[in-house]
Amino acid sequence: GLALGLWRRQAALAAAREDEEEKELRQRFMAPPVSGLRELRRRRRELRSRMELLIMETQAEVCRALAALDPGASFAVDSWERKEGGGGISCVLQDGEVFEKAGVNVSVVSGVLSEEAARQMRSRGKSLKAKDGKLPFCAMGVSSVIHPKNPHVPTMHFNYRYFEIEEADGTKQWWFGGGTDLTPTYLNEEDAVHFHKTLKEACDKHDLKLYPKYKKWCDDYFYIKHRGERRGIGGIFFDDMDSPSKEEVFQFVKSCAKAVVPCYIPIVKKHCHDSFTPEEKLWQQLRRGRYVEFNLVYDRGTKFGLLTPGSRIESILMSLPLTARWEYMHNPPESSKEAEILEVLRNPKDWVH
Amino acid sequence: GLALGLWRRQAALAAAREDEEEKELRQRFMAPPVSGLRELRRRRRELRSRMELLIMETQAEVCRALAALDPGASFAVDSWERKEGGGGISCVLQDGEVFEKAGVNVSVVSGVLSEEAARQMRSRGKSLKAKDGKLPFCAMGVSSVIHPKNPHVPTMHFNYRYFEIEEADGTKQWWFGGGTDLTPTYLNEEDAVHFHKTLKEACDKHDLKLYPKYKKWCDDYFYIKHRGERRGIGGIFFDDMDSPSKEEVFQFVKSCAKAVVPCYIPIVKKHCHDSFTPEEKLWQQLRRGRYVEFNLVYDRGTKFGLLTPGSRIESILMSLPLTARWEYMHNPPESSKEAEILEVLRNPKDWVH
Repeated sequence: GLALGLWRRQAALAAAREDEEEKELRQRFMAPPVSGLRELRRRRRELRSRMELLIMETQAEVCRALAALDPGASFAVDSWERKEGGGGISCVLQDGEVFEKAGVNVSVVSGVLSEEAARQMRSRGKSLKAKDGKLPFCAMGVSSVIHPKNPHVPTMHFNYRYFEIEEADGTKQWWFGGGTDLTPTYLNEEDAVHFHKTLKEACDKHDLKLYPKYKKWCDDYFYIKHRGERRGIGGIFFDDMDSPSKEEVFQFVKSCAKAVVPCYIPIVKKHCHDSFTPEEKLWQQLRRGRYVEFNLVYDRGTKFGLLTPGSRIESILMSLPLTARWEYMHNPPESSKEAEILEVLRNPKDWVH
Repeated sequence: GLALGLWRRQAALAAAREDEEEKELRQRFMAPPVSGLRELRRRRRELRSRMELLIMETQAEVCRALAALDPGASFAVDSWERKEGGGGISCVLQDGEVFEKAGVNVSVVSGVLSEEAARQMRSRGKSLKAKDGKLPFCAMGVSSVIHPKNPHVPTMHFNYRYFEIEEADGTKQWWFGGGTDLTPTYLNEEDAVHFHKTLKEACDKHDLKLYPKYKKWCDDYFYIKHRGERRGIGGIFFDDMDSPSKEEVFQFVKSCAKAVVPCYIPIVKKHCHDSFTPEEKLWQQLRRGRYVEFNLVYDRGTKFGLLTPGSRIESILMSLPLTARWEYMHNPPESSKEAEILEVLRNPKDWVH
């Protein structure tokens, strides 16, 4: 009798604690996580679960920071499922006072790697031994593009992701990738320095070699070859990161994800009420056109998404600006503010030394 | 004395005739042809010369027809050279009363095929035997995209081109390609029928099998796979056309090129003063976004151009609209005019039977 009573009391306490935790997580996140709170709690020590919680937290943190700056607007939150396995949560704020289009997307998908995807990964040097030609995988990430209205507030993009592939012998290959980068319409050196310094500090906590390496990788990755320009003034970018250890890479990714708000939000606050001319708005629209060119012609994530059966197109193309412009033979005059930004897009600068 | 006098008189007459012809050609064309008038006259019987004259004439014909409808605006004419060989003439009218952006581009380039280009052609089934790994080629064509301002006037695209490759044993492979297609913002059945009928008549003069075959090819080619829609309501499209004979294919291409003005200009005239709402303009901008998606993600010509060293980017990307828009999750209501055009983009129709 006594033992049963004690057991019951404990069970009731546990249930109450779970309810409490569920309520708390619900408040913390934009929507219930793809894997389910119960499941995430059950396997809370696994890296997959910790990463899913991190990307959910990052999504909520960024959305709240943006929403606070654009009180009239609000994020539309869509949870979607992928019939091949997994799903995601897309949060989009469109046509606000401050933001033209801001999207923060989480996806957690699993399944069997497509032929094309496996081929692309092998071409990046991965030796993937398939079991009966099949490679079970799990991929998750948070990705975001913020296009503000004011041409003096830069566009910002970030993405942090984790990938796991199970090989024929049961061993798991895993890696992290990600980055944060800035695309201003006009150059503001102070902002560029703040942005890069904040990212550098996040990197330096883990290894002093990381920032210089990933800064260069970012400049190389966001190159619009046919224009001879980069998409923006960079930041950090990395992929296939699988050392020194799962735990250490996760901690590094966590630091980067936590740096998103402090590296960008102060810049938005500083400039979102700056006055601007119609000519400045027009130049912003032309730069938006280049953004579209990079994303549709070169971006690996976008191309991968468009090729993957069952992927959610609206979430992938959320990265495109609300509006863009292409003028034939537009060449800004020498020594103009437009020429100034072009110069650093053509010849990337070191912002922190 | 007499013989010399006669020779002199004949020479003077010939020179006068040449001057006359040169003046006439100058008036007929938008700019001097890439290969030079003298050279074209010298090898006037060769198909290359006849094709170059045809594309120059087509450019001038279309530019004049468009300019006549937009009297306030005028075409900017740029002649450009390609250091690897050849060049082109780009004619662009931007921000007119009737046309948002209208470009008609001629290019005549020659040189040695790049590795990548040769690989792509072989993947299309061409067996190209290279001489010391090199394949001399000559490519010429006229291509055009017309984006009108009024959402009731459709966008039109056409392209006619000729390709020659010299193989190791000196034999020349040659083929023609091209097409004309329409991208309306709203469906107007009468316009669709007129457009397709005019193209069908041009085809039928040569072979009754051509229109049905090339109409289907057009619907298949302009498919935006990730959207499950076609770019527009089609027209004709063909490539690698090398039979029944060079002369007959040239005559067919000539008929198609001559059909551009009659299939499109009446539609512009009919609608360029139609009234429209801001909502209709917005839908047009969203459709322009899809146009950009097709051109940057799928269009073979654009991708080929962006990959080819020394190609003139401004002339290639002239096809992009002046302005475009992407809204997250835009879905027009059922039975709306917006849903009506989407329906025919998802399920192509037969317009002439």
